[in-house]
Amino acid sequence: MKQFISVTDVPSVPRLAEIALDYKKNPYKDKGIGENKKLGMIFLNPSLRTRLSTQVAASNLGMEAIVFNIDKEGWALEMKDGVIMSGNTTEHVKEAAAVMGQYFDILSIRTFPGLKNKDEDYTEKYIHQFIKYAGKPVVSLESATLHPLQSLTDLITIKERWNQPRKPKVVMTWAPHVKALPQAVPNSFAEWMNAWGEVDFTITHPEGYELDPKFSGQAHIEYNQDKALEGADFVYVKNWSSYVDYGKILNTDPHWQFTNEKLRHTNDARVMHCLPVRRNVVIADEVLDGPNAIVIPEAGNRVWAAQAVLSEILKHGK
Amino acid sequence: MKQFISVTDVPSVPRLAEIALDYKKNPYKDKGIGENKKLGMIFLNPSLRTRLSTQVAASNLGMEAIVFNIDKEGWALEMKDGVIMSGNTTEHVKEAAAVMGQYFDILSIRTFPGLKNKDEDYTEKYIHQFIKYAGKPVVSLESATLHPLQSLTDLITIKERWNQPRKPKVVMTWAPHVKALPQAVPNSFAEWMNAWGEVDFTITHPEGYELDPKFSGQAHIEYNQDKALEGADFVYVKNWSSYVDYGKILNTDPHWQFTNEKLRHTNDARVMHCLPVRRNVVIADEVLDGPNAIVIPEAGNRVWAAQAVLSEILKHGK
Amino acid sequence: MKQFISVTDVPSVPRLAEIALDYKKNPYKDKGIGENKKLGMIFLNPSLRTRLSTQVAASNLGMEAIVFNIDKEGWALEMKDGVIMSGNTTEHVKEAAAVMGQYFDILSIRTFPGLKNKDEDYTEKYIHQFIKYAGKPVVSLESATLHPLQSLTDLITIKERWNQPRKPKVVMTWAPHVKALPQAVPNSFAEWMNAWGEVDFTITHPEGYELDPKFSGQAHIEYNQDKALEGADFVYVKNWSSYVDYGKILNTDPHWQFTNEKLRHTNDARVMHCLPVRRNVVIADEVLDGPNAIVIPEAGNRVWAAQAVLSEILKHGK
Repeated sequence: MKQFISVTDVPSVPRLAEIALDYKKNPYKDKGIGENKKLGMIFLNPSLRTRLSTQVAASNLGMEAIVFNIDKEGWALEMKDGVIMSGNTTEHVKEAAAVMGQYFDILSIRTFPGLKNKDEDYTEKYIHQFIKYAGKPVVSLESATLHPLQSLTDLITIKERWNQPRKPKVVMTWAPHVKALPQAVPNSFAEWMNAWGEVDFTITHPEGYELDPKFSGQAHIEYNQDKALEGADFVYVKNWSSYVDYGKILNTDPHWQFTNEKLRHTNDARVMHCLPVRRNVVIADEVLDGPNAIVIPEAGNRVWAAQAVLSEILKHGK
Repeated sequence: MKQFISVTDVPSVPRLAEIALDYKKNPYKDKGIGENKKLGMIFLNPSLRTRLSTQVAASNLGMEAIVFNIDKEGWALEMKDGVIMSGNTTEHVKEAAAVMGQYFDILSIRTFPGLKNKDEDYTEKYIHQFIKYAGKPVVSLESATLHPLQSLTDLITIKERWNQPRKPKVVMTWAPHVKALPQAVPNSFAEWMNAWGEVDFTITHPEGYELDPKFSGQAHIEYNQDKALEGADFVYVKNWSSYVDYGKILNTDPHWQFTNEKLRHTNDARVMHCLPVRRNVVIADEVLDGPNAIVIPEAGNRVWAAQAVLSEILKHGK
Repeated sequence: MKQFISVTDVPSVPRLAEIALDYKKNPYKDKGIGENKKLGMIFLNPSLRTRLSTQVAASNLGMEAIVFNIDKEGWALEMKDGVIMSGNTTEHVKEAAAVMGQYFDILSIRTFPGLKNKDEDYTEKYIHQFIKYAGKPVVSLESATLHPLQSLTDLITIKERWNQPRKPKVVMTWAPHVKALPQAVPNSFAEWMNAWGEVDFTITHPEGYELDPKFSGQAHIEYNQDKALEGADFVYVKNWSSYVDYGKILNTDPHWQFTNEKLRHTNDARVMHCLPVRRNVVIADEVLDGPNAIVIPEAGNRVWAAQAVLSEILKHGK
């Protein structure tokens, strides 16, 4: 694996999932492979799980992770080519990425979308500029449109809980939120479920919340949430802002909140969320505090996903 | 030891002090016990000594310390149960603590009191919510009402300087300050001196500055500072805001500042302070720059206190 | 080497350069010498290269680097003696430096000049206060008037590219900028080139931009940029604010920008800059993106400079 920005960078999704679950059983078996290797972790946006789980994963491989909050500890980067830099940006990504590429064996970076300009966000300008100039393998810690470390985590969280011969029914349901959120997590979850192919995958949301078809692909789209949830084995709850009417909040209907009443439509489904979750807005307390929620072990699995990705790049990234 | 929030968590205070002073002599003797162990250090408030000394202590044990300034690098946490999270808080402590508990072997956290609501502060709502949901041993890096790493440090700083058969006279004296400060350090110092029992302990402060009797306990309270200082072998200088008239500054009398004139009332006492100290407000230059001040080696001892606590939890925390 | 604040702290500049270039060939050869050693990295100002390269250098020596953004994670320090600390400063440097000296084997610190008061900046009050009270070797991560880690880097970047018997002609040229910048980098570059003595060194700048003669020393000063550049083998481009009319911007003439037209005056010179660089203000895209720019490998060399300095202090700093 040469980089980790999208599922399309992964030679074999089932194999990567297996590697991750092997690390869960034996976290320190590859401690030697990170010796003298440095991981740069560059944050342009806040992070809890991604930051901490990736630091732990690097440490499990004997690799040194160095965190740099470039927005707070550094300065603003210029992303556009050819500009006269007489304004607020202090350094061009051409230099910043290339310099960090001199210091680290793997560069990882988190950057959120502006949610103003769909083209700019969906061309992933920022992370591609980084890749172009870094000269080292780049791992996404969530980019404008995708969050692959989260999706690999979600996949192994389902995989380790399913041993029936039939495919599990997995339903990703939109839920309300007070802020306009990126589509990165739902895009990425859809992309990975489709690429994996081991699940029967449905997406449900109000009209106007259709995801970019590049990511939703062959998933079954059902606008009636109750109907979509019928027979679900896993429910992935998530808010996102509109892709069509880009970055807008079109719906605040609290009936889309995931509650025990919604759970009763399912096949006693396990309930997932990438976190942070706004309780009683996105998912009700009764669900999160009940026996069906698996959001905490799901977040715990972030370590093994990151560890699999880092180890594959250390082994095959050159 | 299963956690370290208060002196009441410590099976034997003299034994813990001994362990700390042993590390001072031989810092790396237990370097193996932290192998593959991770310490999460969560800050909701600024810190210099606690942060750095605990990082050094973890390193001395071969343990990886990962710092997370959740207030700056993360987001605001919701502490109340049952609320509809449609406001400024992004994540509930139920998830945040439980998730961090998945990543770390020991969680440590610093959180200051609001000094508005005595009940909320004195029930230690915040740190107890963390403990409840973390599922791992929790170490206080200072909480709303207590600062046990500081107090263990203070205790060993006295212990290593006293080898006479009689108990030393230890006087904790209030001093003025320009801001309303927590009672955490004086509460904790009192709690530890009382629990230790190897000192003759006096507290002196203006009227209205009485500490919560739960912590001041059997200490001798003397409102006349000069009288209190008579024969003191150790003087612990500290400002705090009123506990009775909660969080208020009731007195700004500069005569309570600790000066060489005050020192003359003592038995050539060693002068202690937890730092940071506002010079010429709390303690005069002449004292801090004089031969009786031991605030620097006291701060240095923070490492051994933290190392003793971490090692005891690594050994017996399960 | 007991400290690293200026070239005058270096027993032998050629020897230090050799040590740095040896580490470039074999980064991990001295991994044992940092065992159980801690480097404190104290930032009062933002940093990218200095921060990350020094962390990597410490790691290559097996030394633990602990970063502390005292301005963001701590509080404001008082630098003046004898003041009544009833204002905005929370801790005096006497305590802060001495306490950090208790925790670390080497203390490194970055602090920028105020550019208001020449005497205060040029006496290097801040870093000297740190040195005075730290009680441990201090390494400058850039101070008010000097940036020696950058200059050692620049020196080895020239050295490794020059194997002719004659001395290379090195020209440091002023360039425009939108902000008033410190003189630390040009002062330091001049100081090191002069101390090294292995180059024919010229400085060119508009009138009014003369550096402190203490640093420019015997360098050839030429006010005509084109004439200065004639025959140059290396060009070091840098903006600085006026030293004479202290901290002021006296000139914004875009003709001082370094372009391909300027390059044609040289002997096919390599073009250097400490970074971050404002493109098309200080240096044109055509130069930075062309074959003569060596700013990225120059930045990469920061690691070996820092590693040489840390190792020499670890070996001989006591």
